[in-house]
Amino acid sequence: MKVIRKVDELREYSIEQRSKGKTVGFVPTMGFLHEGHVSLITRASLECDIVITSLFVNPTQFAPHEDFDSYPRDFEHDYNLAKNADCDVLFAPARGEMYPEGATTSLSVGDLAYVFEGKYRPHFFDGVATVVSKLFSAALPNKAFFGQKDYQQTLVVKALSRDMLMGVEIVVCPIVRETSGLAMSSRNKYLTDEEKSKAKILFQSLVATKEFIESSERNRKKINAFMHEYLRKLEILKIDYALAADAYNLSEPSEFEEGMDVVLLLGTILGKTRLIDNMVVKIPVSNYNEDERFQAGLK
Amino acid sequence: MKVIRKVDELREYSIEQRSKGKTVGFVPTMGFLHEGHVSLITRASLECDIVITSLFVNPTQFAPHEDFDSYPRDFEHDYNLAKNADCDVLFAPARGEMYPEGATTSLSVGDLAYVFEGKYRPHFFDGVATVVSKLFSAALPNKAFFGQKDYQQTLVVKALSRDMLMGVEIVVCPIVRETSGLAMSSRNKYLTDEEKSKAKILFQSLVATKEFIESSERNRKKINAFMHEYLRKLEILKIDYALAADAYNLSEPSEFEEGMDVVLLLGTILGKTRLIDNMVVKIPVSNYNEDERFQAGLK
Repeated sequence: MKVIRKVDELREYSIEQRSKGKTVGFVPTMGFLHEGHVSLITRASLECDIVITSLFVNPTQFAPHEDFDSYPRDFEHDYNLAKNADCDVLFAPARGEMYPEGATTSLSVGDLAYVFEGKYRPHFFDGVATVVSKLFSAALPNKAFFGQKDYQQTLVVKALSRDMLMGVEIVVCPIVRETSGLAMSSRNKYLTDEEKSKAKILFQSLVATKEFIESSERNRKKINAFMHEYLRKLEILKIDYALAADAYNLSEPSEFEEGMDVVLLLGTILGKTRLIDNMVVKIPVSNYNEDERFQAGLK
Repeated sequence: MKVIRKVDELREYSIEQRSKGKTVGFVPTMGFLHEGHVSLITRASLECDIVITSLFVNPTQFAPHEDFDSYPRDFEHDYNLAKNADCDVLFAPARGEMYPEGATTSLSVGDLAYVFEGKYRPHFFDGVATVVSKLFSAALPNKAFFGQKDYQQTLVVKALSRDMLMGVEIVVCPIVRETSGLAMSSRNKYLTDEEKSKAKILFQSLVATKEFIESSERNRKKINAFMHEYLRKLEILKIDYALAADAYNLSEPSEFEEGMDVVLLLGTILGKTRLIDNMVVKIPVSNYNEDERFQAGLK
């Protein structure tokens, strides 16, 4: 596995590979890799000829009070995990390589960046869009692989690639979970053992809400209330949001339509650690025929 | 000369050329080509193996009250001029190809976009940055060629390419002028013959101000006042701005230092037509020695 630290070198490498007819897969990460990242690299190596993984803790997606300085970093650990997962190139740029001195340009994908997670982290998605755009310019991939755990981020990056004509197909890969159900995250390192055991309530609430919906509940407010009630069992959990939305555009109709994909989104804080999770649920197709639905007041 | 209308096709073409070791030069235009554009294409063909010229009237750099709808368009004329200037590819995308349905992403280069011309056209430079970023993603050039006539735009595009790691070298080419001194512009088409003859005052004021500076004037306010006074001779000319600034970063010190490059920037309206022009002037290096400067109160 090759380590590249310069943007220009990465771009020339990628152009060379693509010109030989090889497809380039890209896995952007902030390092401190875990099994979730490994699953992205493995998937990329199955779908593409060449896999580039980037390690870069992006300063612009952290607010001043957030954990940029303390965010965990471990190059040797990351190197070994990426290498074992069949990564071809590890791109590990210095900060000045990604943000040249005097850089003032930023990207915004618009409204999608300022709801839900974006309401609590107003810098976050514009920072993500800006750095992903730069990384795509450097790596020139055919496909890029993102984890579903950052659900809203996957929508932001899809919008970015489409809107800015980047020609990069965004592949969203399933959430990798601990045995307890806790979604893997580099930030889980911050949790005490006790918190870690309690944190499984996020996944449990998603599973319970999925069952609630599949028992034929389509009213958004009732679904949201169900999730809140479930999560409030863990009193020390601060709930920023726990809600259901259209999985494609995050709109919030009062009733979800049958057959529709709905995403359940959680943004919480446990102790000092921000924890997010999500699950996509299909609203069941009713067995009522049209007449029965009319009589049941569904139409 | 090949005509390409699809982004993906252009990108594949460019990757293929670059992989063969050929350099790709890019000339983005809004079409209705004139000798100024031709000089950019010619310069690109001297410096690069392959020249791509784009024709696209970019809606996002026009405000609603501006001339997007009436902006002159003539594909056949543009085709012939580009072909005769040794252009290899004419990229002429439809609007939906550059702005896919639902596109909401935009770019901003920051403060540089909101001063001078940006104060009078607040949409302009963010719209330019957004479309140039898209065009660079599609054309993947080594170098891009811009006319000095849009001086502030050249600084915006340089910042964009540097900040967003686009790896595109921005080449700024000299202003091409009519015999009268009027800078060539697609918008000159809007001028009546009488206005066209009067419009030469822009160039004349720049030449006169250059001489004023070279007679050793370094005080910014005095230079600005000189320009205003000169331009006011043409009473029907509306002056949005006429000022001197640091040619590299558009800062406005009260005194310019000797040896410094200063840009004289004009933004005006004649009748219904917006006319801009500029000139870069080097502040003369004084012949005073240190003692004499001290006595003359220059230090």
